Amino acid sequence: MSHPSENPADLDRQNPKAEIAARAEAYRNWGRWGDDDRLGTLNFIDAAKRVEAAGLVREGRVVSLSQSFDTNGPQKGWRRRTNPVHLMTDTGTDAERGNQGFPHGIGGADDYISMPLQCSTQWDGLGHIFDHGNAWNGRRAGEVVTSEGDQVTGIEHAASVIVSRGVLLDVARHLRPETGELEDGYAITAADLDATIAAQGSPVGPGDIVLVRTGQLTRTRRDGWGDYAGGPAPGLSLTTAGWLHRTEIAAIATDTWGFEVRPNEFDVPAFQPLHQIVIPNMGLTIGELWDLDEIAAVCAEAGRYDFLLSAAPLRITGAVGSPINPVAIL
Amino acid sequence: MSHPSENPADLDRQNPKAEIAARAEAYRNWGRWGDDDRLGTLNFIDAAKRVEAAGLVREGRVVSLSQSFDTNGPQKGWRRRTNPVHLMTDTGTDAERGNQGFPHGIGGADDYISMPLQCSTQWDGLGHIFDHGNAWNGRRAGEVVTSEGDQVTGIEHAASVIVSRGVLLDVARHLRPETGELEDGYAITAADLDATIAAQGSPVGPGDIVLVRTGQLTRTRRDGWGDYAGGPAPGLSLTTAGWLHRTEIAAIATDTWGFEVRPNEFDVPAFQPLHQIVIPNMGLTIGELWDLDEIAAVCAEAGRYDFLLSAAPLRITGAVGSPINPVAIL
Amino acid sequence: MSHPSENPADLDRQNPKAEIAARAEAYRNWGRWGDDDRLGTLNFIDAAKRVEAAGLVREGRVVSLSQSFDTNGPQKGWRRRTNPVHLMTDTGTDAERGNQGFPHGIGGADDYISMPLQCSTQWDGLGHIFDHGNAWNGRRAGEVVTSEGDQVTGIEHAASVIVSRGVLLDVARHLRPETGELEDGYAITAADLDATIAAQGSPVGPGDIVLVRTGQLTRTRRDGWGDYAGGPAPGLSLTTAGWLHRTEIAAIATDTWGFEVRPNEFDVPAFQPLHQIVIPNMGLTIGELWDLDEIAAVCAEAGRYDFLLSAAPLRITGAVGSPINPVAIL
Amino acid sequence: MSHPSENPADLDRQNPKAEIAARAEAYRNWGRWGDDDRLGTLNFIDAAKRVEAAGLVREGRVVSLSQSFDTNGPQKGWRRRTNPVHLMTDTGTDAERGNQGFPHGIGGADDYISMPLQCSTQWDGLGHIFDHGNAWNGRRAGEVVTSEGDQVTGIEHAASVIVSRGVLLDVARHLRPETGELEDGYAITAADLDATIAAQGSPVGPGDIVLVRTGQLTRTRRDGWGDYAGGPAPGLSLTTAGWLHRTEIAAIATDTWGFEVRPNEFDVPAFQPLHQIVIPNMGLTIGELWDLDEIAAVCAEAGRYDFLLSAAPLRITGAVGSPINPVAIL
Repeated sequence: MSHPSENPADLDRQNPKAEIAARAEAYRNWGRWGDDDRLGTLNFIDAAKRVEAAGLVREGRVVSLSQSFDTNGPQKGWRRRTNPVHLMTDTGTDAERGNQGFPHGIGGADDYISMPLQCSTQWDGLGHIFDHGNAWNGRRAGEVVTSEGDQVTGIEHAASVIVSRGVLLDVARHLRPETGELEDGYAITAADLDATIAAQGSPVGPGDIVLVRTGQLTRTRRDGWGDYAGGPAPGLSLTTAGWLHRTEIAAIATDTWGFEVRPNEFDVPAFQPLHQIVIPNMGLTIGELWDLDEIAAVCAEAGRYDFLLSAAPLRITGAVGSPINPVAIL
Repeated sequence: MSHPSENPADLDRQNPKAEIAARAEAYRNWGRWGDDDRLGTLNFIDAAKRVEAAGLVREGRVVSLSQSFDTNGPQKGWRRRTNPVHLMTDTGTDAERGNQGFPHGIGGADDYISMPLQCSTQWDGLGHIFDHGNAWNGRRAGEVVTSEGDQVTGIEHAASVIVSRGVLLDVARHLRPETGELEDGYAITAADLDATIAAQGSPVGPGDIVLVRTGQLTRTRRDGWGDYAGGPAPGLSLTTAGWLHRTEIAAIATDTWGFEVRPNEFDVPAFQPLHQIVIPNMGLTIGELWDLDEIAAVCAEAGRYDFLLSAAPLRITGAVGSPINPVAIL
Repeated sequence: MSHPSENPADLDRQNPKAEIAARAEAYRNWGRWGDDDRLGTLNFIDAAKRVEAAGLVREGRVVSLSQSFDTNGPQKGWRRRTNPVHLMTDTGTDAERGNQGFPHGIGGADDYISMPLQCSTQWDGLGHIFDHGNAWNGRRAGEVVTSEGDQVTGIEHAASVIVSRGVLLDVARHLRPETGELEDGYAITAADLDATIAAQGSPVGPGDIVLVRTGQLTRTRRDGWGDYAGGPAPGLSLTTAGWLHRTEIAAIATDTWGFEVRPNEFDVPAFQPLHQIVIPNMGLTIGELWDLDEIAAVCAEAGRYDFLLSAAPLRITGAVGSPINPVAIL
Repeated sequence: MSHPSENPADLDRQNPKAEIAARAEAYRNWGRWGDDDRLGTLNFIDAAKRVEAAGLVREGRVVSLSQSFDTNGPQKGWRRRTNPVHLMTDTGTDAERGNQGFPHGIGGADDYISMPLQCSTQWDGLGHIFDHGNAWNGRRAGEVVTSEGDQVTGIEHAASVIVSRGVLLDVARHLRPETGELEDGYAITAADLDATIAAQGSPVGPGDIVLVRTGQLTRTRRDGWGDYAGGPAPGLSLTTAGWLHRTEIAAIATDTWGFEVRPNEFDVPAFQPLHQIVIPNMGLTIGELWDLDEIAAVCAEAGRYDFLLSAAPLRITGAVGSPINPVAIL
């Protein structure tokens, strides 16, 4: 089998089905970690990788890679994805007034949240996307994720896994040094990724977690989200599937809603085609809506682009995604 | 001013108001980190502490310290604290059936959660408890936490802070070597904490995050929560306030609902009196409902009780608490 | 085809499958109101019935038949059914303090709710129960109710329908005149229903909405729900299916969690077998957790048991149930 | 005291504070129904009025006056007001597949909702708006509505009250006979209301519930809500306060987000000034986001504009508003 092209110009823009299928087949990892696998490429993280990553902590500095969870986010209700609604069950106003019924001057504030698990900075779990009714590792989608949640690959299985070496690829800064922002619709290629790595000097290999900065968040932070929720954005080209496979990275995250370029690279309707390849077929864990701006500044100043990345999901039983606060420790 | 006694036998069990007030005054840290402070004792974590902590990573192993987020938890509706409700907006059953309306065979599953932020493994933020209408650093409670959330000390301010050296104090195993479980109502004393440290051999000092295992979770895991939600439990004695202050620890967490012993040590009604001292007065961040069983086993086997602890809260704007998945990396 | 027995003693308590199937077949109304029907027995309500019902309004009195929506209800988390969580987004405490940012002295309070639609007084929609994968009118369940809701028989289709003559059958008072409470596990028979009607003097016929008081709510109001959520309760016997069919009533409601007797009348496991017959096969709309105590007292005093019943569901698109506040107007 | 002008041209557009205060004082009903009152103008509904209203049922027809509860509504997150999020806990897709674990072929679908109580068709309760820290009947706002809800005038107190004669005032059709739509920003005057009544022929008096159709919903149904959530709309002029008072109507509702005209009639910032007069001072219950289009057509055809209106709120303990499905029965 010849490998699918990694040049976007070679894509048959009339035939998403075939382009997706070729890559799904070429990069499918089903069975690679056994029939019972629940982790996919997170298996590439090993003990040595973590020890190596801890060795990158030299300044004792922590940078949060999370966007805020509040009503200023990009979600506008598409498929019932709203911004988080954070509500108080008790407040300081009440406590100060003394109406809470507690003795001896103690008062309290408590809170509550209602939110889609994918509303802000998050991991997509392996049960998030299916390809022709197949979930990760070749299971039938309907046997994996029912109304009661993901019975097999729920995000709780990754609760003690996602700590590794993180490598920032500031593709936006590399390709657009003056603005540091890729334009919406820009499809990042494998060549772009390699060129960024070469320029930055921090290599990428098995078990690493790669963070691709597109700069779109910088723009929305300045201009507002408007009615965004999945509109045009820079992101990975469908043709990076091979790169994502052969580098044996453990996971990847971007600073955008959808990870891959939007609109996508087809002239006929298609929806998140790179997701369709890498989640159910490759078993790749994907992060979205991360904030990579501060870490980009820190890395640029430090002259190095790797760090210890700690990004454990919440232990929500059966979830197909999780809100997170990933931290770079360096 | 003489220091309040650290011997529970000295407590005036008829006079919680005075016992609380004496300790609130003795251990108050208001102004210690400036008038604008939003972090309290988390300020004790410095860069050197984090570099030291990273140096503890020798095996490349990660242990999650989180309990599950699902309907099997201990919350029964008290003050509207329920267990989390996790719901699917899309499922694999639907995707496999092909009724989602996406082209070329892609399908998806998404999810949603409604939950109190304190329903399972969590940090209490500094806006969670007040003392006579005062919040952390001497601010008025009503100026800090309104119906719109914590306007000053929201948990988002700790988003890039809580990574430090963690030290497990397996008090339950030290005091009850045969069962590894303290009985409900057992009040852990400062002497118990020191004895455990001495026996384990890992000292505790400024900037450390201390994890106190009571073993109650082991018991509820075996016997079920029943209608728990804040019933009797082992926990810290009110008289440990001095220990919590002079050790200059950054934060503390336990495997129980309420951190401190329940019922408390008074013969007249009182409610979470140690909280009243340490959160608004001392500025101490408290973790509750952690799972310390696996890390206890790992530490016992390894013969050391310290590790890199990464426990960043979700970046929920204005929250007075946050669900977390703390991980020990060692 | 002979009609299934209406005597509970004739039930084969070892064979729920057969007993259910016989009644499902005997009382199936599929196609009775056309292939496109979305209303089932609600079709029995006609204009004349409503005019007749309005004529019952003689005192100008309104009685709410709703239980409260709050954390004191019977839901304990079974299948994620919790009691409602009602939260404030703004409060009077804040408004009085003047921290809401509005000009000229205006202040406000707003609120929010998270709840299962079946948590308190409710209608079960026709998409709520299936029989061997079949929904009401013979549609396939998976084509009716997906993760996006009930695409065919959503409760919104009944938004302008459920106003009719209501008839209270105070079976508890008739059978247990001293206590007015049926014991848990008591299976109300067709004979019981007819005897109650005869004693009360208000007949039941096509298009009526029948309200069966078991008195269990009186008991739980006195003794508390404990850990109820679907435990033992009085309710309709499986053998009333024929009565429900031949009377051509439009809908029926009880003051219990589950409408039918619990535990049910089989010696082997079965679950809500009468639901399985009457919702998907007969197309009967069922109300649960109604409060029939005040209306029972009013009817007893007035010496008549019928009234105008207005019980429109909320217009929640695609819902399979709806919280309601049914009112009797008499 | 002279009565405030009912001519909008007389308003001092620079001085909302004074214009509001004059009307608040002139039309204040505090104490009118006793110190313990929780109902305000709903007290105007009496038994005779309800019997009269029931007499209006001549055709046996029911018209729902509710808009839909779904993600197509006007709420865009302002002050955390989102459209409702309706989610399934069980589905027919799962049931048909047989993965729910129930015996003998029974399957089920259940659902859940998270929503602001004011997200779609609703009543504002008396605890919804305050005037200078005062709630209805002169109570202090902070003693009425805390984080635990409305402790005094919660909507549950109206659970068996709001059934009366409804009168539609199709002001839009009367003033704009060709389009049936008032333009955004049009302030409906007392003269407009009286002219509409005169033209329609159904008088308005004590205890009636008045429904004012502006036609804005017709427009948004055609053009979409866009990013509405409280933008410009036709609605009642501030100067109608006197009319609302002297007619002694029980309640009023419109087909708009905010009942009163938006933007309001001042040249300096003000917020919902008519609310500030009529809710806390007059004790008037207000309905918003009703759908008055079908009833307008029905009334026009029937040549009469009054009917039995049944609009009981959900019995949500302590709520300051309630989602409803009001029905006109005629």
